[in-house]
Amino acid sequence: MAKNDKDAPRRPTARLPKGMRDIGPAELRQTQAMLETIRTVYERYGFEPLETPAFEYTDALGKFLPDSDRPNEGVFSFQDEDEQWLSLRYDLTAPLARYVAENFQDMPKPFRRYATGSVFRNEKPGPGRFRQFTQFDADTVGAESVAADAEMCMLAADTLEALGIPRGQYVVKVNNRKVLDGLREVVGLTDEASNARWLTVMRALDKFDRLGIDGVKALLGPGRKDESGDFTKGAELDTAAIVTVTSIFEAHSNVEDKLAQLGQRFGNSEIGKQGLGELQTIWSLVSAAGYGDGRIAIDPSVVRGLEYYTGPVFEAELLIPAADEKGNPVRFGSVGGGGRYDDLVARFTGQKVPATGFSIGVSRLQAALNLIGRAPPPALGPVVVTVMDKDQIPAYQKMVQTLREANIRAELYLGNPKKFGRQLEYADKRGAPVAVIQGSTEREAGQVILKDLIEGAKAAAAIKDNKEWKEARPAQVSVPEANLVEAVREILARHG
Amino acid sequence: MAKNDKDAPRRPTARLPKGMRDIGPAELRQTQAMLETIRTVYERYGFEPLETPAFEYTDALGKFLPDSDRPNEGVFSFQDEDEQWLSLRYDLTAPLARYVAENFQDMPKPFRRYATGSVFRNEKPGPGRFRQFTQFDADTVGAESVAADAEMCMLAADTLEALGIPRGQYVVKVNNRKVLDGLREVVGLTDEASNARWLTVMRALDKFDRLGIDGVKALLGPGRKDESGDFTKGAELDTAAIVTVTSIFEAHSNVEDKLAQLGQRFGNSEIGKQGLGELQTIWSLVSAAGYGDGRIAIDPSVVRGLEYYTGPVFEAELLIPAADEKGNPVRFGSVGGGGRYDDLVARFTGQKVPATGFSIGVSRLQAALNLIGRAPPPALGPVVVTVMDKDQIPAYQKMVQTLREANIRAELYLGNPKKFGRQLEYADKRGAPVAVIQGSTEREAGQVILKDLIEGAKAAAAIKDNKEWKEARPAQVSVPEANLVEAVREILARHG
Repeated sequence: MAKNDKDAPRRPTARLPKGMRDIGPAELRQTQAMLETIRTVYERYGFEPLETPAFEYTDALGKFLPDSDRPNEGVFSFQDEDEQWLSLRYDLTAPLARYVAENFQDMPKPFRRYATGSVFRNEKPGPGRFRQFTQFDADTVGAESVAADAEMCMLAADTLEALGIPRGQYVVKVNNRKVLDGLREVVGLTDEASNARWLTVMRALDKFDRLGIDGVKALLGPGRKDESGDFTKGAELDTAAIVTVTSIFEAHSNVEDKLAQLGQRFGNSEIGKQGLGELQTIWSLVSAAGYGDGRIAIDPSVVRGLEYYTGPVFEAELLIPAADEKGNPVRFGSVGGGGRYDDLVARFTGQKVPATGFSIGVSRLQAALNLIGRAPPPALGPVVVTVMDKDQIPAYQKMVQTLREANIRAELYLGNPKKFGRQLEYADKRGAPVAVIQGSTEREAGQVILKDLIEGAKAAAAIKDNKEWKEARPAQVSVPEANLVEAVREILARHG
Repeated sequence: MAKNDKDAPRRPTARLPKGMRDIGPAELRQTQAMLETIRTVYERYGFEPLETPAFEYTDALGKFLPDSDRPNEGVFSFQDEDEQWLSLRYDLTAPLARYVAENFQDMPKPFRRYATGSVFRNEKPGPGRFRQFTQFDADTVGAESVAADAEMCMLAADTLEALGIPRGQYVVKVNNRKVLDGLREVVGLTDEASNARWLTVMRALDKFDRLGIDGVKALLGPGRKDESGDFTKGAELDTAAIVTVTSIFEAHSNVEDKLAQLGQRFGNSEIGKQGLGELQTIWSLVSAAGYGDGRIAIDPSVVRGLEYYTGPVFEAELLIPAADEKGNPVRFGSVGGGGRYDDLVARFTGQKVPATGFSIGVSRLQAALNLIGRAPPPALGPVVVTVMDKDQIPAYQKMVQTLREANIRAELYLGNPKKFGRQLEYADKRGAPVAVIQGSTEREAGQVILKDLIEGAKAAAAIKDNKEWKEARPAQVSVPEANLVEAVREILARHG
């Protein structure tokens, strides 16, 4: 509108920053309820809440002084007045490390904390990938025992069930970095010069779900040509080595057999045996507590996150078949994960402090819950008290307050009351269950009219004739003003 | 420890960024409960939640391109990969303006939203003044009627009561920018050249609480010398003008008289009459709804925020006398405020859209609640199941899960179990109400020992003799393992 006016000031465009989003009431209420549920489970496990700031000194986060050409590689960074670099946190673990290093003396040990909040990634945004999102983490710091890891898996299982995912429709998979390190030793790729080749092996193993065992074997051996004809170079392992590393995919009727079988393959590897022993201990712990019924599974083929973690790793996966908006089948994959990382505090103090944790990607899990039809029904809008006579606004406002005092969500129509139809349109748009109307006739009789807007919408769909409508006046009652609260409650009860 | 090692890598220091803080469990749980209470009241008033990102384009926030020498004046700013400036939000209103301008067509109008979250100020930190803190806002956009303002005041009152501040110990004061504009007109200071002088007048009026009427009059006239002998130059109004502007402090037995009296002073000012009229309407609305009992007060002497707001302004004040940690009497002053600001969206679209809002400073209000002794009692720690025999950990873990399944907060001791005394120290440090103990004797008998740690601490204070202690074994019972949940519940019930 300023286009024709040369003297108009240049106005900024109202726009969201790239990769960011606004979150509206329906989603936000659901998130709120989810966070509350997760909180309840984490509290039950004895974790204590901790909140750290949204940004930290960049060096404390583990990213080094940002390159002056590209200061924002992966994180959002800026300088304070002392020219120290600060970065928005990219996860909740790095700030925990800073907190633990700073407060180690005074903490109860082991230290169990949970945290939730926004994290920020300066990465290319995409569909469903935003630069700000919510995580919910639990970590135990200072516990060497794998009982701490076993507990993380049970915590994950309990949390998914509390959120409404039925037993049998999810699994928490457990593996151990040391098992893979054992395989690496056995196939003789531990020297530094073999790092890249081992990475190729790991990447090949991670493609099992997509390519199947033959595809993986090709990638472990000479290489693989895909449907389009593109060739991917392989890790060039010999046949014996391929048999050894693919043993992680072998099916067994029970965990004991699986671990025993792998044990035979790692005969010579100390680290491999240690890894299998830890898996065995975790399995004893979770099955003693009853979680061996499919809720938690030992799965040596989990490869994700193994570069980061130093011992047990966990991955929570949904098993429910579902379809996206277009009806295509969707595999959810991971909705949370974690593991043991014993280098948490070493960056600051040089001291190794054992730690293990589990993190839920809240938005991702929320999307999954909605896809499987676990979204809560939308909240009812407020009761809208309409304005028939402008000079009666104080009386209408009093009705609103009377409803609110009775814990009923209510509001006065605050727009221009001239066109009554607009007030009802507003009530509809707000999802209001009831409109309260009082004209002079009703006022003189000490009455109010209650319009059941949900029933009314149904009736409107059924009645086609305008005259019929006027005569029937469906879903509308006149009640004494003194009974306002009671009568509104009755209608609300009808709509749950 | 790396000091002696020349080859040690340079390690970062674990430290909080300047002006930031970590928030521990006790405070965080209280904040959480407060936010939940505020949310409940705001929902009851028909407001809908909205979450906007933590940062916005700098120009959209209303700060202009940061100066390259001092890019962080007041806000924290950084550039994205397209070299556009972004800033962390400094309040929740500026992002609302961006949201409304971007989505105006599709919104129900009036649009009622609430929002809570961290805001960031790049300002000098001080005691109790942090660079990140939490606000909780409600705003109504698109409602011209002062009924929307009246509602903000009732919302404020209801919220304070829901948070536990007794009626009579707070007041929501209401004034109107137009009343002050009327005074300005009457004393003849409306020309632009008088801006600075009018600012001096406003500043003088704002010192009424501290200096009393004589101090204010001195500052309105020739000036004032304080106890230290320092002289502050005055606004140099003449006696008649001083009488006019200080009429806002005159006491009256009721609101009607007060407004009538002020009306006489503004006889000639259109804007002043309009302001008084709006105050009168707000008063009718809130008193019809019962809030004229002292919860809401018309107070033309409220000056704070008047540069920012364009119509009614509100200020929520606590009246409870209290003392700080050193026993000094403390005046809380404002714990929240708001008002009407009709220029919200005009920055983007040129269109004036009426809006009014109320904002609670959550941390400030929380500090106030704690000072008046309204802090909730600290949460009980978890039941701690101790480890007597390392090879029995799966059995102990099962006990923990049994307790958790019964909704009892519980955990296994995850530290090194060698020293049993340390396990009890840990339980104490965690505020654990119960320790569960099972050695081989108990196990063989199918029993567990429950140590009531709260009762035990009391008994320990009473019993001085070590031998007497050992014989009495106070606050310790042996129960069948099958009754674990029941017996723990009994002890928990004793400690509320």
